[in-house]
Amino acid sequence: MGSVVWGCITDFFTYETTKSVVVKSWSVGIINRIVQLLIITYFVGWVFIHEKAYQVTDTGIESSVMTKVKGFGYHNNRVMDVADYVFPPQGAGIFCIMTKLIITEDQFQGRCAETGSRFSCETDEDCYKHLGSILSNGVITGACINNASESQGRCEIEGWCPAENDNVIIKPMLDVKNFTIFIKNSIRFPLFDVTRGNFPSSMTSEQIKRCTYHPEHNPFCPIFRVGDVLNYTGQDVADLSVKGGEIGINIQWKCNLDLSIEKCIPQYSFTRLDAPFAKNAVSKGYNFRFAKYFKTENGTEFRTLHKAFAIRFDVMVTGHAGKFDTIPTLINLVAAFTSVGLGTVLCDIILLNFLKGADQYKAKKFEEVSEKQMEASVAQSPGSQLSLKHGIKSSSDSGAISLSICDQAM
Amino acid sequence: MGSVVWGCITDFFTYETTKSVVVKSWSVGIINRIVQLLIITYFVGWVFIHEKAYQVTDTGIESSVMTKVKGFGYHNNRVMDVADYVFPPQGAGIFCIMTKLIITEDQFQGRCAETGSRFSCETDEDCYKHLGSILSNGVITGACINNASESQGRCEIEGWCPAENDNVIIKPMLDVKNFTIFIKNSIRFPLFDVTRGNFPSSMTSEQIKRCTYHPEHNPFCPIFRVGDVLNYTGQDVADLSVKGGEIGINIQWKCNLDLSIEKCIPQYSFTRLDAPFAKNAVSKGYNFRFAKYFKTENGTEFRTLHKAFAIRFDVMVTGHAGKFDTIPTLINLVAAFTSVGLGTVLCDIILLNFLKGADQYKAKKFEEVSEKQMEASVAQSPGSQLSLKHGIKSSSDSGAISLSICDQAM
Amino acid sequence: MGSVVWGCITDFFTYETTKSVVVKSWSVGIINRIVQLLIITYFVGWVFIHEKAYQVTDTGIESSVMTKVKGFGYHNNRVMDVADYVFPPQGAGIFCIMTKLIITEDQFQGRCAETGSRFSCETDEDCYKHLGSILSNGVITGACINNASESQGRCEIEGWCPAENDNVIIKPMLDVKNFTIFIKNSIRFPLFDVTRGNFPSSMTSEQIKRCTYHPEHNPFCPIFRVGDVLNYTGQDVADLSVKGGEIGINIQWKCNLDLSIEKCIPQYSFTRLDAPFAKNAVSKGYNFRFAKYFKTENGTEFRTLHKAFAIRFDVMVTGHAGKFDTIPTLINLVAAFTSVGLGTVLCDIILLNFLKGADQYKAKKFEEVSEKQMEASVAQSPGSQLSLKHGIKSSSDSGAISLSICDQAM
Repeated sequence: MGSVVWGCITDFFTYETTKSVVVKSWSVGIINRIVQLLIITYFVGWVFIHEKAYQVTDTGIESSVMTKVKGFGYHNNRVMDVADYVFPPQGAGIFCIMTKLIITEDQFQGRCAETGSRFSCETDEDCYKHLGSILSNGVITGACINNASESQGRCEIEGWCPAENDNVIIKPMLDVKNFTIFIKNSIRFPLFDVTRGNFPSSMTSEQIKRCTYHPEHNPFCPIFRVGDVLNYTGQDVADLSVKGGEIGINIQWKCNLDLSIEKCIPQYSFTRLDAPFAKNAVSKGYNFRFAKYFKTENGTEFRTLHKAFAIRFDVMVTGHAGKFDTIPTLINLVAAFTSVGLGTVLCDIILLNFLKGADQYKAKKFEEVSEKQMEASVAQSPGSQLSLKHGIKSSSDSGAISLSICDQAM
Repeated sequence: MGSVVWGCITDFFTYETTKSVVVKSWSVGIINRIVQLLIITYFVGWVFIHEKAYQVTDTGIESSVMTKVKGFGYHNNRVMDVADYVFPPQGAGIFCIMTKLIITEDQFQGRCAETGSRFSCETDEDCYKHLGSILSNGVITGACINNASESQGRCEIEGWCPAENDNVIIKPMLDVKNFTIFIKNSIRFPLFDVTRGNFPSSMTSEQIKRCTYHPEHNPFCPIFRVGDVLNYTGQDVADLSVKGGEIGINIQWKCNLDLSIEKCIPQYSFTRLDAPFAKNAVSKGYNFRFAKYFKTENGTEFRTLHKAFAIRFDVMVTGHAGKFDTIPTLINLVAAFTSVGLGTVLCDIILLNFLKGADQYKAKKFEEVSEKQMEASVAQSPGSQLSLKHGIKSSSDSGAISLSICDQAM
Repeated sequence: MGSVVWGCITDFFTYETTKSVVVKSWSVGIINRIVQLLIITYFVGWVFIHEKAYQVTDTGIESSVMTKVKGFGYHNNRVMDVADYVFPPQGAGIFCIMTKLIITEDQFQGRCAETGSRFSCETDEDCYKHLGSILSNGVITGACINNASESQGRCEIEGWCPAENDNVIIKPMLDVKNFTIFIKNSIRFPLFDVTRGNFPSSMTSEQIKRCTYHPEHNPFCPIFRVGDVLNYTGQDVADLSVKGGEIGINIQWKCNLDLSIEKCIPQYSFTRLDAPFAKNAVSKGYNFRFAKYFKTENGTEFRTLHKAFAIRFDVMVTGHAGKFDTIPTLINLVAAFTSVGLGTVLCDIILLNFLKGADQYKAKKFEEVSEKQMEASVAQSPGSQLSLKHGIKSSSDSGAISLSICDQAM
C-alpha cells in the first residue's frame, strides 16, 4: 500500500513539456522571428508605452468647481455689476451671465389684453381657439378686448398684467466680452488619494490678479476673459449677446502619477454646447424668465418680470489618473508571452502547405494514431511492444489532464 | 570564430513547432470539432456581435441640458406662471415645479408665540425642555406666552414673527399635469468628437411647438407633458402635488458610430427617485422653504415665508458610443484563436481516461524521461546514441527557452 | 469520387493533441507544481475572491440627492433661519450655509466715491490709471472726489451707490456648528434595476429625528451635525465661518448584489475640497455677492448688496455594484486554465539549461529537421521511408493549420 501512495506522489511530481520539432529552415525561421518581433513591438510600443497597461487607472474623479465673475456693463442706462447679471449668484460650476433683459415692470394680478398679433381678434369667437393655450402670457379667458385706438382687438388674459411684450429691440450688454471668469477647480483621485488644484500653489495673489488665460503663453492662469473664451469656440460676441447661448469650458485632467505630481496639470478646451441645434429654427440661443417681487404700501404684491437672454457657462471636469501597479503589469506580461507563441499559427500554415518538402514536415510534425491500431495493440500483449519500441515506459501524466493519476499503480 | 557566430545565427533563425499526435478516432474527433464550434460560436455571436468587442467605446459623455416649462395654474386665487412656480428659473437640468405654497406673510424680526401643539405650555418650565430645539420656527426663549382667548399657552420664540403654521390644508395646483417641459439636450463624445442633439435638425419650429412626447408615436419630440411623465412612473398627480416628490427623466444615448450617425438617438425613461423612502414615515415627498424680502417705508426689512411643496425633475443623461478600431479587433481575434485551442483540454481528458485503448493513447502522447536514464546516458558517450536512434541531431532551441543558445558551438 | 469526400470527412473528424515529454525529475517536478500552485492561488485569491472577476459591474450609478438644513443662528442682532442662510433654497446636492454677511443697504444707481485706500487720489489724473478696472465697485469715471472731512480723496465710480466697504470686521455666525443637515440620497443601478436609499426603511420618523450621524455608533443616521462634519475634515469652525470654505460629503456605494440587498449600504467620508489652494494667498475661502431688490414709493429700484461668506457643501455620490454572471466567469476560468500552462516557460528554462543532463533533455524535447534532410528524402521515394520508420502513416492535419486538408486524397 505504501508503494501505491509513493507511486502517486512520484507521478504527481513529474514535469510535462511539449515535444517540439525544430525546423532548420531559413525561410520559416526568418518569418517566425519577424512575426515574434512584430508581436513584441506591439506589446512594448502600444500596450505598455502608449496604453500604459502597467498602470491601474482611476476614472472616478471627484471635482469641485468655484467660479467668480468680475466686470461692469451698461444695460438700459444702468451699470450692472456681478450681483445683477450673474445667475445663480453662488459661484457654481454652471452659471449664466445675462446679456439682455426685457423688463416688464409693475405687473399686478388681474385681467388685461394680450400682446402680439398672434392673439388679435375681432369677436370673442376669435379667442375661443386659444383657450388653454400655453403660449400666451396668462390664462386666455375667451373674451376679446377692442381698443378704440387700435384697429384690431386682442384676446383677454387672466394673470400678471400688463402682459409682457418681448417683440422689442433692446441693445445687449456688449461689455460682456471684457468680463473675466475666475475658475477654482480642485480635484481628487480617490484611488490614489491625490488632490490637485487647477493653478500651481506657487502662484502669488498678484500674479493671479494680473494674468489672463492663454493656451500657449499662460496655460495655468485661472482667469478667463469672456471675449477670449467665445473666440476659442469660434462664436461672435454680438450674436451670442442678443440670442444667448451655452458655452462649455472643459477641464481635462490626464495624470500619470508615475511622473512628478507637478506634471498632473489641467488642460482647458472650449465648445459651444448648443451647436447641434444651430440648424433648427426653434428655440435658438438661451433665455429664461424670472421675477422680482415687491409690495405696495397697502400690502398688494406686484412684480417685475425679466426675460433674460444669457450666455450659460458649463464648467465640466473630466479626467483619469494612472499609476504603476504589479497586478496589471503581471497580467499584461503574461498576455505578451502567450501572444508571442501565436506566431506559430502563421508559420505552421506556411511550413505545412507552401514550403518545399511540406509533406516531409507534416510527417515529422504529426504522428498518426488510428482506432484500428489501438485495438490491434490492445489485442497483443498491451503496452510491451510500444514501450520497447520507444525505449521508455509509457506513463500517465499530470492531474490536469489525466483524471486517474494512479491507475497504473493500483 | 566566424563559424561560431555563424552557428549562433543559424541557431537563431530556426523555427520550433510542437510535435503533434493525430488521433483518427470518430468519437474524440467529433467531440473536438463540436467544442471548437461552440467556442467559435461564442466568440462570433457574443463577443463580436453582441458585445461589439471590435469597437472602442467612449463612456465619458459630455452633456448639457436646458429646460423650459410652460403652462398656467391657479393657486390661492392667483394665476401662477413660469416665473412664479419654477425654481431655479434659469432652466437647469434639475428644477422644481411648485405645486403647493404655504405662505406666511409679513414676518418681522421679534418675539412671538410658537404655533403647533408640540410647543404648548402652561408655565415657563414647560418650555425649558425645548431650549435649543431646531424643530421650532425660531429660537426658544424659555418663556410661555398665555393667551386669554386660548385654553393653552405656547412657548415664546425669537426670530421671524409671526411663526409659520404649516398645519393648514391648501388645495394644490393640479393644473400642473397640463404643464409642458421642453428639454434641449446636446451631448458630445470627446473620443470621436461626435456631437448630437436630442431632436433631429430636420424638425421645424412648428412641428416642435405642436408635438408631445409619446414613447411610440412621437419618440423624438422634446416636449413632455407633466401628467404623462407622472403616468409613466406610475404616480398619481394629485398625491404628488400635495406632498411633492422627485421624478427622474433619464436620457440614454447608446450610439454605434459604425452605423449612420442618424441612428445615434436618445431614449427616454422615467422613474420616481424617492421611491426607496416610500416605506419610511419620515420626510415623505419634497418641500423646501424660501423667503421674499421687502422693506417698509422707514427701511425695516420684512419677509414673506414660503413653504413650497414641489415636484423636482432631475434630467439625467447617460450613454456611451462605440466605433470600429483595429486594436481591440486584433486583441479579441487573438483571444479567439487562443481559446479555440482550449478544446484540447476537454478532449485530452476524454481521450486519456474514458476511451477504449486509453493506455495506448497515453503511450503515444507521452514520452517518459527519468533522471536515472539521463544519468546513464551521460555516463555513456553523450549525445551519440540518442542522435543515432532518432536519425537527427539534437539541438538547442530558440532564445525564448534556451538561455545559452550558442552552447554547442562554443 | 465518393471516397475522396469520405477521405475529407475522415480527415476532418480527427483529433490533434500535442506530443508531450514527461520528465520524471524531482527538482523540475516540484518547481512545476509550485509555479502552478502560485498561479492558481493568484487566480482564486486575487482575481476571483478579491477582484470578483465572476461578476459584471455597473458603474453608471444614478443618484438623486435632497438636503434639508435646520437650526437658528444670531447674526447682526437678527435671528437667521433656513430661508435666510441656505442658498440655493431648494435643497440641492450642492448648497451653501452663509456664515458671515457684509451688508450694504439702500444702494441706488448713481455716482459716488469708491471705498478703500486702493482708489485714493488727489487729482483726477490719479484715477485715470484705474479706468477700466474690474476690481472696483463700479465703473471708474476718472474723476477724483475730494472730501473736506478726509485728508485724501477717492476716485469716483458710476454704478450702485454707496459703494460696498468690505474692510469691516463682522462676527461670523458661529451657531453654524449646531446646525444639522438631513441628506436623503436614493440611488439606482440601471443594469440590475436595483434601487436603494441611504437609510433603512425600518427607521421610524422618531428615530431619524433624534439621531445624529456617527461613523461607528450611528453609521446609518442621515442627519449630520455641521460641527461634526467640519471636525471629520480636521477644520476649525471659527476659521471656516470667517473666510468660508468648501466641504465635500462623499457617499460611496459599493454593493455586492450576490449578498443580501440589505448589505448594500452607503459609506460617508468628508474632505475639505479647497485644500489644494490652502498655500495660495489668493481667494482663500468661499464668498459670493448677491442682492435683494426693493422699490421706493415712486417706483425707483434700489437694492441691498450682500457679500456672503459661506460654507459650501458638495454631496458627491459614487459607487458601483457587482453581480454574478456566467460570461465573465467563463472568460476568467479560461484565462486561469491558460495561465496555468505558462508555468512551463519557466520550467523549460530550468530543465534545458541548469539541470544535470540538460543536453539529454534537449535531445528528448527537440527533434531537429533541416532543409537538406528534407530535400534528400524528397529525392528518394517520398513518404515511404519515413512512414516505415515511424510505423505509422504521415497525415495532413486539421483545417486550422493545414489549408489543403484533402491534398492526399485528390
